[in-house]
Amino acid sequence: MDVYEAIARRRDVRAEFTGEPVADDVLLRMLAAAHRAPSVGLSSPWDFVVVRDPQRLAAMAQHVAEARQRFADSLPADRRETFDPIKIEGICESGTGVVVSYDHSRGGAHVLGRHTIADTGLLSVALAIENLWLAGVAEGVGVGWVSFYDEDFLAGLVGLPDGVRPVAWLCVGPVHHLEETPDLERFGWRGRRPLEQAIHHETWGSVDAVRPR
Amino acid sequence: MDVYEAIARRRDVRAEFTGEPVADDVLLRMLAAAHRAPSVGLSSPWDFVVVRDPQRLAAMAQHVAEARQRFADSLPADRRETFDPIKIEGICESGTGVVVSYDHSRGGAHVLGRHTIADTGLLSVALAIENLWLAGVAEGVGVGWVSFYDEDFLAGLVGLPDGVRPVAWLCVGPVHHLEETPDLERFGWRGRRPLEQAIHHETWGSVDAVRPR
Repeated sequence: MDVYEAIARRRDVRAEFTGEPVADDVLLRMLAAAHRAPSVGLSSPWDFVVVRDPQRLAAMAQHVAEARQRFADSLPADRRETFDPIKIEGICESGTGVVVSYDHSRGGAHVLGRHTIADTGLLSVALAIENLWLAGVAEGVGVGWVSFYDEDFLAGLVGLPDGVRPVAWLCVGPVHHLEETPDLERFGWRGRRPLEQAIHHETWGSVDAVRPR
Repeated sequence: MDVYEAIARRRDVRAEFTGEPVADDVLLRMLAAAHRAPSVGLSSPWDFVVVRDPQRLAAMAQHVAEARQRFADSLPADRRETFDPIKIEGICESGTGVVVSYDHSRGGAHVLGRHTIADTGLLSVALAIENLWLAGVAEGVGVGWVSFYDEDFLAGLVGLPDGVRPVAWLCVGPVHHLEETPDLERFGWRGRRPLEQAIHHETWGSVDAVRPR
């Protein structure tokens, strides 16, 4: 699949999983794509814990449901009404969770390019996640990033060692289709920002040079 | 270009820029690809400041040279010897810098999915950067992420408002070729971690289920 098409078709999937598990060879291609991502100082600070045990999936789903409730309770009435019908995870339906983690100790004492900005290690992990996500589109496999969890809970659930931080729970599974419009837009939570507002020329606030046509 | 091919061919470019500036329409397609990235709560918390003024590029290059010197001075002798020939930026040669920034206030008071993990906003920006990078491969345009800078300096250089954080300086320009092997590996700084070490099954340390063949 063309890279631009994969970028355009990619969605954050919650409700479109078929219920069939992703095949091992497909998942391996997706993980290999993630592993080819750039990383600060070539540190490759990510790991992938593949979770398929139904009990472990159910435990994560239960934990996420509680975090969802806390978020719902924090919302003003109008936002809560908009939020209520939005599905935020497909942990059990997808059949496979991939916990992506970050190890700050990877790469040794002198990580080239991280001495100025410590977060470049963590950011590298997100680059890997985007590669996996786009590979999934090409494979007919949906990916949904779940962030409604406490890091300590997830670290315990999959036994991350001290110093290794969970960065994402990805629901991964074949999909019968991908929606054209992001769920949060379809459900009226939030619209997408126009591209032209995000592009500036030379300094912030100047939008003259590179204008979408 | 096929998405897997783009992922495989992508390199962090320093020395392969042709010196020709990237065409406006090409850059716009790359920025549009970035803008299609997933983001927590559909917040699209990124902005792109396109820098082409030679004086501003030179000022950034000078600043980065100083940060490089500080890193070199911090290294033990053997690492310093390995580091010395490694080129870490192509700011002036690329002809275009794209400063990618993060606005934590984007998305309002209730960003769906960020109440548990504050860093999901920052991580969203990295997803956009990877989209831009892969689109560049398809366009014959190289991208090099420079992180040897102080955030306050870069924020001042392009006039970021208070609360908007620079996340990356990307050198962007046409390339005559992309190297097959990452620079840090070619120059002996560090090898790539084998994929199989990064994949675990159910819990950390178990590598039985999804094994590269």
